[in-house]
Order: sequence, then structure tokens, then C-alpha cells
Amino acid sequence: MIAGYQARCQQRVDAALAALFEPPLAPLERLYQAMRYSVVNGGKRVRPLLVYAACEALGGDPARADGAACAVELIHAYSLVHDDLPAMDDDDLRRGQPTTHIAFDEACAILAGDGLQALAFEVLADAERNPQDAETRLAMVASLGHAAGPAGMVGGQAIDLGSVGLKLDQAALETMHRHKTGALIEASVRLGALASGQATPAALAALRIYARAVGLAFQVQDDILDVESDTATLGKTQGKDQAHDKPTYPALLGMDRAKAYALELRDQALAAVAGLGDSAEPLRALARYIVERRS
Amino acid sequence: MIAGYQARCQQRVDAALAALFEPPLAPLERLYQAMRYSVVNGGKRVRPLLVYAACEALGGDPARADGAACAVELIHAYSLVHDDLPAMDDDDLRRGQPTTHIAFDEACAILAGDGLQALAFEVLADAERNPQDAETRLAMVASLGHAAGPAGMVGGQAIDLGSVGLKLDQAALETMHRHKTGALIEASVRLGALASGQATPAALAALRIYARAVGLAFQVQDDILDVESDTATLGKTQGKDQAHDKPTYPALLGMDRAKAYALELRDQALAAVAGLGDSAEPLRALARYIVERRS
Repeated sequence: MIAGYQARCQQRVDAALAALFEPPLAPLERLYQAMRYSVVNGGKRVRPLLVYAACEALGGDPARADGAACAVELIHAYSLVHDDLPAMDDDDLRRGQPTTHIAFDEACAILAGDGLQALAFEVLADAERNPQDAETRLAMVASLGHAAGPAGMVGGQAIDLGSVGLKLDQAALETMHRHKTGALIEASVRLGALASGQATPAALAALRIYARAVGLAFQVQDDILDVESDTATLGKTQGKDQAHDKPTYPALLGMDRAKAYALELRDQALAAVAGLGDSAEPLRALARYIVERRS
Repeated sequence: MIAGYQARCQQRVDAALAALFEPPLAPLERLYQAMRYSVVNGGKRVRPLLVYAACEALGGDPARADGAACAVELIHAYSLVHDDLPAMDDDDLRRGQPTTHIAFDEACAILAGDGLQALAFEVLADAERNPQDAETRLAMVASLGHAAGPAGMVGGQAIDLGSVGLKLDQAALETMHRHKTGALIEASVRLGALASGQATPAALAALRIYARAVGLAFQVQDDILDVESDTATLGKTQGKDQAHDKPTYPALLGMDRAKAYALELRDQALAAVAGLGDSAEPLRALARYIVERRS
């Protein structure tokens, strides 16, 4: 079920994204190419999928969620471009392709990332691309700004870079992940819920628990795959975390307990949305997929 | 007159900015330090000043413009941090102080810049910091997103980096500047006007002409100062543009015609706001200041 749903969501968001990369002026062509390259790359679109699934879970039309789906993917894409830079994680390969600073150059990659972030907020503010009432659009901007910023994703990357070579305990590792990947995943679910036009406080609270569990499960599974998968399947350099002496769940808990923890988080996520009825099936399938995926 | 007005604006925006840099969590301390360092540095606050002056020109209370003033300065500050990076302009000195990647490190500077950009949009979306009705706040987010992004400031920096060593004509040079510095200056004036709560379409159009002229004048004067001022007065490395073989107005037009052009742009700006009455005096003083400043 998830593969078909994923393909439909991917198609929706990819069409909406592609429309953003027409250079308005000839001298801007290379920058727009670099932005397009960073976004249109066959990514799994997990965050847009969460946007659509949360919107539909509350009975919303997915067409209302295109803008939010674009925005979270633009933020995710920019964060990968900057994380791959030589001064950061220094990665040459992403999803089997040269990273943006390799395919273009470092300055272009920095600017492409900066431009993608600005675009995300522009898309959310735009009534045509994000057809909600003004209060809802603003709530989306505020949520995304907070999740993407220093108290969220950017902060998580800073904690991560500051943790290399340190012995983190599980609480410290989770603090890092809740910022680095969890904040944007939480925002994806929240934006989708808001886009439905039918988000009650109770539904938002339940979806928040779901999102926090799924976000952490995603990270635990990533750590597991970094050890178990090969570079070809993964599309990025396998064993990179270990090589960089980064703290991971398998290193901290052992592989068996790490796997058990991923399943436990999946079950927390499923329990949180148990009350939502059939429309939440995509959300449930996604929680399962995240701990079952092999790449 | 402008010095006192500038000092008052600087005080307002600096107080509002300082409140943004309390780290919410111990492991985020260094990132917040780097953001604070990049912003709280005695900058001239030209863009916040334009925000306040535009707000007051239309009869608005400057207190309503604090959020907009913060937001444009956060965007400006992030752009300087990223422009100074080794892969970009590679500058060690800014306003007489080590640039952020020198005072901290490169990864931290990239992240501080990314965080400052996200904060700018969060501040604009926040009703407490930016007490406008929802439609006005959204219009501000959309304007700033567009001005800061690939069709604006980021695009300008990309054009600039692509122009080193090229012979640009005046039209191409202006295209670059209208993006690189002009777009954010235009947005500053527009956000200030919107913050007044009294922006008519006619007033917005007049202020746009003002902002475009002032933005270009600012750049022409920057080029002139790069040749004429010394490093100590300038607070950054003098002669840098020439050394990097960057296209400048003095190089293109000769020094005398460059100076005449700056004055012509000042007069265009003054003419655009001639109909606005006494409340526009700060805007007028600012247009004069921009072509008279020595640093």
C-alpha cells in the first residue's frame, strides 16, 4: 500500500516543486540549476508524504497540502546541501549522485541552499500555492521557521557537529536527533494537519506524539542502515557514521536493542493515531515503512 | 539630524534583536553565541533604519515596526556571514572584527547564517513581535521571502560571483546590484510601509521608486569608498573590489561620473517622496546620508 501512496505523493510534490525552478533571468540560470539539482533528485520525499498523510488523516484534500509539502522538502533539501559541504560532513555522494558542491562548486552550493530556504517561506506565504486562510498560512510559517531554525533543525546539526568523538548517553543522543531530524518531521505532520483545515487541538496533540515517535524511529533506522546496508543500496557512503566516530543507536545500545527500540517507537506512533479511523491508514503505513525500509 | 535618528533606531532594533539570542538549551550555546556575534556588532543598521523611516513616513508608530526591523537585519546579517566564507568572498575582517568563520569556525558560521535566516521568518510570523493583522504579516513574509531568495539577494550574490573578471556594462552591473543589495533595501522600505498600517498603493509605489534609487546609490557609494577610504575607516579591507577584479562604478564610469551618478540617484529618491510631507524627513535625511557617508 505504501509504495503506491508514496508514488502518488512523490508525483504531486515533484510537479509542484519543478514549477519553482524557472530562472527569471539569464544570469541566474546556474543558481536555479543548482537548486533544481539539489531538489529534483529522486529523494524518497518522506516529509512531503507525512504532510499529505496528516492532511488526509484529518479529512483534508491533498491538493490543499501541496504548498506545505513543497516547503518542507525545500527546507530538507537545503539542509542536505549545507550538511554535505566540506566544512560540515564533507560528503561527495548523496543518493548515488555527486553532492551539489561537487556537481557545481562550493559557493554555488552555499547559495543554492540559502535560496531554497527562502523559497520555502515564500511558497508558504503565497495564497496561490498554499490556499489556506491567512491565519493558517501564518501558523505554518511560524511552525516551519521554528522547526528549521536554531531551536530546531539547525540547532540539531550544531549539536551533532559538536558531538563527534564525544560519548553521548541516550538522552543526549535523542536531544540531538529531536532537533536535527525530529523538528522538521514534526513540522511536516503539523503543516499537513493545518492544511486540512480541520485540525482540532486534540488531533494536533495526537499527531505530535505520532510525529515525535516516527521522527526518532526514522533516525534509529538510519543508524541501523548505516551499519547494515551497503553503499550501493544506501546511495550514500556506508559506514560513514562509524568512520567519523559519530554517536549512533547501534553503538550506544547494541544492534539488537536498537532494532527493538525502532519497533517500540513504531508502536508508540501507531497508538497515537489509533483513534483517527481509516483516513489515517497512510500515516500508519508510513510508521511501519520507516522501520522496515532498507535504504 | 540623521545621527540622532539613527542612534534611536539602532537602540530600538538592537534591543529587539538581543532578545532573540537566548539559547534554549545548553548544547546550543555556541550556535547562539555565533548568531549573536554576527548580529550584535555595531553595524550601521541601515535597513532597520529604512524600515522605521518608511513606517513613520506614512504616520505609523515605530513600535509596530520592530519585528520588521529585526527581520531585515537578520537576513542582512546572515548574508554577510555567508558572503564572508572562504568559498565565497573569503574575508577575515568585517567592521574591524574577525568574521564569524574566523571567530568561531566555518561549520558554525554556515549554521549561524542558516539559523539567522529561519529566525527572520519566525519573527515576522509572530504576532507578539510583529503586531499586524494576519494579512499584513503574510504580505511581509512573502515580500521578504522573495527579496531574500534566489530571485533577489541570493541571486545577486550568485551573479556577483559569476562576474569576477568579466567586463560588465552598466546595465549588467545594475542588474547585479538590484538583486544583491537592492532587493533587501526595497523590502525594508516596503515592510516598514506595511507596518504603518496605512500603506496605500500610491504610497507603496512612491516608496518603491525611493527604495530602488537609494539602494543603487548605496552601492555606488560603497564602490567609491572602496577606492577612497582606508581600511581603518571602512572597517573592512580597503581596495578589496579592485584586488578581486570586481566590476565597480568607478572602474566603469570613472570616479567623477560615479560621484555624479550617486548624487543623481539621491535626487531621484528625494523626488519620489516629495509628496509625503514632514513625516518623511528621516527618509530624506537617509537618502542624503547614504551618498555623504565616509564608511
